[in-house]
Amino acid sequence: MKALLEAARFDTAGLLVAVAQDAETGEVLMTAFMNKQSLERTIETGRATYWSRSRKKLWVKGEESSHVQTVHSLHLDCDGDALLLKVHQTGGACHTGHHSCFYREILDRGSTLKEKKDLVFDPKKVYRRRTKE
Amino acid sequence: MKALLEAARFDTAGLLVAVAQDAETGEVLMTAFMNKQSLERTIETGRATYWSRSRKKLWVKGEESSHVQTVHSLHLDCDGDALLLKVHQTGGACHTGHHSCFYREILDRGSTLKEKKDLVFDPKKVYRRRTKE
Repeated sequence: MKALLEAARFDTAGLLVAVAQDAETGEVLMTAFMNKQSLERTIETGRATYWSRSRKKLWVKGEESSHVQTVHSLHLDCDGDALLLKVHQTGGACHTGHHSCFYREILDRGSTLKEKKDLVFDPKKVYRRRTKE
Repeated sequence: MKALLEAARFDTAGLLVAVAQDAETGEVLMTAFMNKQSLERTIETGRATYWSRSRKKLWVKGEESSHVQTVHSLHLDCDGDALLLKVHQTGGACHTGHHSCFYREILDRGSTLKEKKDLVFDPKKVYRRRTKE
């Protein structure tokens, strides 16, 4: 981890921006944040592990839904404050049932949000306790 | 902008995470931040305009380098705190001369950062005053 930790620039909250991209299709799936521990855990386990700012805890993507992200490759940006994860996404990345969280296209100069009709699972069947990881 | 501004969830600093993706190749180019004004400007002009946290000002991508990002489409994520911009990138997105800022692959469990040898321009010739936008 030495080279990575020397190059990484965690922000004042100790976080990096993380972008998950489907390694097969190139579709951008989601953004999240990582602290040092979640970065280490991601590398050790090969499973995308983020830091949940709302729950203030490590968040293994798919821990409830089983829709895990298996890491294909990891990439650090030029100034060290963002990571790109190319992943194999089981099921869908989004708690709404879409494959990607970016399922709303902004049209008509922001007066329309057009939703994709591409649900890959039924969130009611996948999330029993809550609707979002 | 009404639908978009109702759905957007700016953080306590008034920012959204923005991810720029090459609309042709699907390559993730960079991440940055947008405030309300930069989002409005991006939509009005069709040119990616971010908020520079370090310089505390609007940052039209390519204003110095001429390596602008022309917006192909804009996408909002499920919880409204991140934007995906599919763009046509002139030149390269990265101030280092790479097409993408994510030119360093993390290998050997973080002990190696392997740089791509894919420079698309000479940063010394493009940035006269400083090495980074």
